[in-house]
Amino acid sequence: MPTRTIGFIGLGAMGGAMAETLIKKQYRVTGYDMRPEAVAHLEKAGGRGASSAEEAARGADMLVMMVVNADQAENVLFDKDALEALKADATVILCSTCAPDRIEAIARRVEKSGRAFVDAPVSGGVTGAKAGTLTIMAAAKNAVFKKAKPVLTAMGSNLFHLGEKPGQGAAMKVVNQLLCGVHIAVAAEGLAFAERAGIDPKLALEVLSGSAAQSWMLKNRGPRMVDYDNVVTSAVDIFVKDLALVLAAGQGAKMGLPLAAVAHQLFLSASGMGHGVEDDSQVIETYRALMKKS
Amino acid sequence: MPTRTIGFIGLGAMGGAMAETLIKKQYRVTGYDMRPEAVAHLEKAGGRGASSAEEAARGADMLVMMVVNADQAENVLFDKDALEALKADATVILCSTCAPDRIEAIARRVEKSGRAFVDAPVSGGVTGAKAGTLTIMAAAKNAVFKKAKPVLTAMGSNLFHLGEKPGQGAAMKVVNQLLCGVHIAVAAEGLAFAERAGIDPKLALEVLSGSAAQSWMLKNRGPRMVDYDNVVTSAVDIFVKDLALVLAAGQGAKMGLPLAAVAHQLFLSASGMGHGVEDDSQVIETYRALMKKS
Repeated sequence: MPTRTIGFIGLGAMGGAMAETLIKKQYRVTGYDMRPEAVAHLEKAGGRGASSAEEAARGADMLVMMVVNADQAENVLFDKDALEALKADATVILCSTCAPDRIEAIARRVEKSGRAFVDAPVSGGVTGAKAGTLTIMAAAKNAVFKKAKPVLTAMGSNLFHLGEKPGQGAAMKVVNQLLCGVHIAVAAEGLAFAERAGIDPKLALEVLSGSAAQSWMLKNRGPRMVDYDNVVTSAVDIFVKDLALVLAAGQGAKMGLPLAAVAHQLFLSASGMGHGVEDDSQVIETYRALMKKS
Repeated sequence: MPTRTIGFIGLGAMGGAMAETLIKKQYRVTGYDMRPEAVAHLEKAGGRGASSAEEAARGADMLVMMVVNADQAENVLFDKDALEALKADATVILCSTCAPDRIEAIARRVEKSGRAFVDAPVSGGVTGAKAGTLTIMAAAKNAVFKKAKPVLTAMGSNLFHLGEKPGQGAAMKVVNQLLCGVHIAVAAEGLAFAERAGIDPKLALEVLSGSAAQSWMLKNRGPRMVDYDNVVTSAVDIFVKDLALVLAAGQGAKMGLPLAAVAHQLFLSASGMGHGVEDDSQVIETYRALMKKS
């Protein structure tokens, strides 16, 4: 019998949209969030609200978690008893972005209880979450992945099975954020240098966007580096956090990541100047602050 | 009367192809290269061979130069008397990749002689040179640019006029190489980390190529990082040289370029391990050398 009863914990912008997508696809979702208004929102969309994590998990076949980080995931599962409330053969799907070694530790504890675990970080933003088109970077034993596949596919049409070892999904997400963060920072480095040389930055962006220097981030963030419209797609502080996670993952794996380390410092400096809540394109302000006025 | 008589100096893989493209478009090209076989090749393609730089320049309306660097350009123009051999109102078009401050100095000396100067570095490789589809990043006074435009367009259908100040074309090329070099190095950093995590690198590349982590270099060089076929599109040592030029340009402009500096060290290390003449994708060997064996 296919999974129909899903507990869902963490109903923020991403989690809420993912839970609603599951409801639209005929899953029975019981959701919990620390913020009662997020639970009320889920109820309006046709889900069932729970007043605790344990209640959301009670008797569910699967528990999907889109909490902020590994600390919250551990708190919900082990301290708030969500794990023990699940069916004895249930599956936990953790979609939060966490360090690979933390995921490994959580997986061990979940599996010790007899439940299965899927490491399943996502990318694609709220738009992808609403449309069910997220990229999901999953790692789980083959049999577990097979069982979870319909639910994963319902949330993300772009599903990858990266390996059998929990933490490999997290590692893939880390690699993804590593490239994204460095691409934004290097677009800023290049466009700031063009400014310094007195080149019209819009023209510089046009040249780069049509050449081998092109990246998705250059095309997406570049226009807001050149001409900031105060729109925030994702904040500078998100990359301060994500690149810190990348570096922690590198340390966990005993691997130096020099470009990620430099990019982290650049986002951190932008945040330190007061640009933390602005669009991440504003990492270019770090370069502008360092340019000799002429 | 439109320009018809062009002197061309530097008939290597790029320069030779550019000169032949001009010949195909009905220009009368007299070419010189230090290697007699390159001159003979131009003659076979319908050009006139010269036995010295001065002879190639003699009486020409325009002199196109695709020499190795600024030192060679100065040597040809000022020591080998190519400049004085040109018509009194001729235009010098320098297509080599040079540091912006070197271009400024060369432009000043050319203009002092009464001739005009176009700073016109190119990108697009031998393929683009043969097809006449190069990207040309030009800087010249408006009137000079207008006069040179037909010849520039003949070589590169993707022509940009970046400013009136010689050196701005060079600066744009520097920015282009900065992004290209860092994109290759960060693709290596990410794919090496995926390897370290035990993720199938081909699958990792597929995930990244379809996400916001995408770049032209990731898609082009990534497959050869994952599975090296000994094909050399551009060598590691080219980026050792180009990123050194980027850093020199930054120093000339008094601007720190931290990501370019780190990327340079990574290519330099790959070269130091003996990978200098291999494809630039092999910068990934720097990361592999630093990974803990497990």
